[in-house]
Amino acid sequence: MKIANRKSKIKNPLTLILSPKGRGKDEGVFVHGFKAAGIACGVKKNGNKDLALIYSETPAVAAGVFTTNKVKAAPVLLDMQRLKKGLCQAVIINSGNANACTGKKGMDDAVRMAAAVEDALGIKKGLAMVSSTGVIGQNLPIDRIEKGIPKLVSSLSSKGWNDAVHAIMTTDAFPKFAFEKCRIGGKEISILGIAKGAGMICPNMATMLAFLATDAAVEQKVLQAILRTAVDKSFNSITVDGDTSTNDTVLLMANGAARNEKIGSRVNGQGSRIFQKMLERVCLKLAKMVVMDGEGATKLLEFNITGAKTDKDAKKIAETVANSPLVKTAFFGEDANWGRIMAAIGRSGADVKEEKINIYFNDVPVVIKGQGARGKGQEMKAAKAVKEKEICIKIEMGLGKGAKTVWASDLSYEYVKINAAYRS
Amino acid sequence: MKIANRKSKIKNPLTLILSPKGRGKDEGVFVHGFKAAGIACGVKKNGNKDLALIYSETPAVAAGVFTTNKVKAAPVLLDMQRLKKGLCQAVIINSGNANACTGKKGMDDAVRMAAAVEDALGIKKGLAMVSSTGVIGQNLPIDRIEKGIPKLVSSLSSKGWNDAVHAIMTTDAFPKFAFEKCRIGGKEISILGIAKGAGMICPNMATMLAFLATDAAVEQKVLQAILRTAVDKSFNSITVDGDTSTNDTVLLMANGAARNEKIGSRVNGQGSRIFQKMLERVCLKLAKMVVMDGEGATKLLEFNITGAKTDKDAKKIAETVANSPLVKTAFFGEDANWGRIMAAIGRSGADVKEEKINIYFNDVPVVIKGQGARGKGQEMKAAKAVKEKEICIKIEMGLGKGAKTVWASDLSYEYVKINAAYRS
Repeated sequence: MKIANRKSKIKNPLTLILSPKGRGKDEGVFVHGFKAAGIACGVKKNGNKDLALIYSETPAVAAGVFTTNKVKAAPVLLDMQRLKKGLCQAVIINSGNANACTGKKGMDDAVRMAAAVEDALGIKKGLAMVSSTGVIGQNLPIDRIEKGIPKLVSSLSSKGWNDAVHAIMTTDAFPKFAFEKCRIGGKEISILGIAKGAGMICPNMATMLAFLATDAAVEQKVLQAILRTAVDKSFNSITVDGDTSTNDTVLLMANGAARNEKIGSRVNGQGSRIFQKMLERVCLKLAKMVVMDGEGATKLLEFNITGAKTDKDAKKIAETVANSPLVKTAFFGEDANWGRIMAAIGRSGADVKEEKINIYFNDVPVVIKGQGARGKGQEMKAAKAVKEKEICIKIEMGLGKGAKTVWASDLSYEYVKINAAYRS
Repeated sequence: MKIANRKSKIKNPLTLILSPKGRGKDEGVFVHGFKAAGIACGVKKNGNKDLALIYSETPAVAAGVFTTNKVKAAPVLLDMQRLKKGLCQAVIINSGNANACTGKKGMDDAVRMAAAVEDALGIKKGLAMVSSTGVIGQNLPIDRIEKGIPKLVSSLSSKGWNDAVHAIMTTDAFPKFAFEKCRIGGKEISILGIAKGAGMICPNMATMLAFLATDAAVEQKVLQAILRTAVDKSFNSITVDGDTSTNDTVLLMANGAARNEKIGSRVNGQGSRIFQKMLERVCLKLAKMVVMDGEGATKLLEFNITGAKTDKDAKKIAETVANSPLVKTAFFGEDANWGRIMAAIGRSGADVKEEKINIYFNDVPVVIKGQGARGKGQEMKAAKAVKEKEICIKIEMGLGKGAKTVWASDLSYEYVKINAAYRS
């Protein structure tokens, strides 16, 4: 992954994602039967884009994963209800206002927002979903949003994703966009994803939205199961326990425009696996971008736990270490301070035998059998490893077969600055 | 509590604690039969004091509470073992090196450190306890410590607490000292405490040491029970789940020099209650100082949860909100951003009915029935409340009788700076 640099804001996410693979700028970056748009309608005071629309020319099979926070924003409650039908033709998203903790008025506004876009698009009632992100506790400026919808709809284009991804940003330093295509049963299939979210000290507190569109034909139940797995391995591996903010939402629409044999039918095991892997790659790309947009982040840290007593223990260790501000500030300071990692492992609640633990930074041993690794040039090698932009922290517990990998950013001065000042 | 100011380092902790009550500088600030000392022996590279000693002229009844971290430093393991006898005559503490993750050599060093001070003091083997704080994973410079012990012992004085408290500091911005006296059954009884520790983003990761001396006569089992309760209401109310660093230690010695009727005997219920309250006040004073030494802290935040379904739920809510970096940065920014508090409550795992929640900042309502409080001048009042140095965030859940109070600091730029740079 290309490491984003806060100072040189990436204007076009397509460049970010596509150029490393040497692809042409526009080649193939659309999904059959989908259009997108993004405009400024005045929710954000600074005049930035704040209203996005994703539209499928035909009703699409839909799957979704939502926040587990007990305080759920109105649009989340609406989408959860609408998803029961398994169909969706449009998603309208505003940034700048979360429409959370807004009571009955909040739900009325979410329903109004959906109805307005359904009317403007001429689609069936109940086929539009709604997402919001921004400040909690203020009523949605629904009049401004309604006024913006005609312009939003008329801006729809198969290449409108760049506008859409900008319109869903809040504290994000750069837009997050991922695209993959492959062949399944002789048909070309694409998956395109956009996301917003900045991985904070505990990423579970940043609102994370992701919208995925594919032209594959997939059975709804299979689509939901595949999305669930992909989210667990990506977005939920940068958060704690799947606990999330009031608004977190991942929506996937599959409109079947690729005319493949429907994934999920019995004869189609291989196609299903290919599709699942592709979806996982798209989600992981987006999730890593969220991590690297960690509000001042300078490094991408992969915490790879093996040998824990159980998978549950591995998860506890991974999350405790990855969320430790002391560990994260040490990496920002490029200090090979493994003592802070040992202390975090010890308080994770997992079974621990100190004398069995090995820790490596990018394959350089730093802890062997619970004590500082020794050997010629060891300190210099470790000091060099922590200067890398991407660091894999491998932790071998030596107790069993439990494993878990999570991603996190380091913790820099910028974090506090951004979060003390932010309130659009 | 006087709010500490990082920029004007308080040189003399006695001034900090005593002057608000208008007491003379030295009046009564000693405990009968105890002496203390603090010197520099070369553990810290910068030449600051790094070796402290607390000594009772007679063997004292002892109680202790230790870290629940599964990775325990050698001195913690040694003290836990020695405490079984319930007696202690001296505590030797070094700062600059935690003697943690140091294997067999670490335990040998801890035992050597205890033996050296026992020899120098001429006290019985097994009556000295040991504490260490500082960097994890490096061997103790035991030779330098041993060399320093004669000077340390010869510096002992009944007024040596100021030197001792300086010698146990690491990242602390100011020394932490508390003193109380009262009369029980006609006898004057004193409790004196010193502590080190800086409340970090999650305070459970900072090493916290506290040493308490009293001239009261108390039965050992009663002393242990009283200390346990006092620690739960103070030091454990600034940490999460009692989870702690590798070295955390609270030790209390009671030498009986006040010649009171022994607390714990049946006839002495009232004395026991007076003593317990006094100990709790001393511990809470020290704990609040640890919070306010929150590495860049500018505010003392009290989170007071009531009406939760159970006490356990109240604890979950208190700790999730108090440890939220987003909540803490908002208070640093003096932003009445109650949405972040609602989001933290929602993900705490406790039972939540959003529409029943009320939140107050220093008695100014900011959330009523789950939505932003309205009313004349409300925003101005809330904006004023968050400018205070001490803010009580009262959260009424409206579900039951569960209650919990915890203390935390805000989160400022300084935090990251200190923790990225620190490695003495």
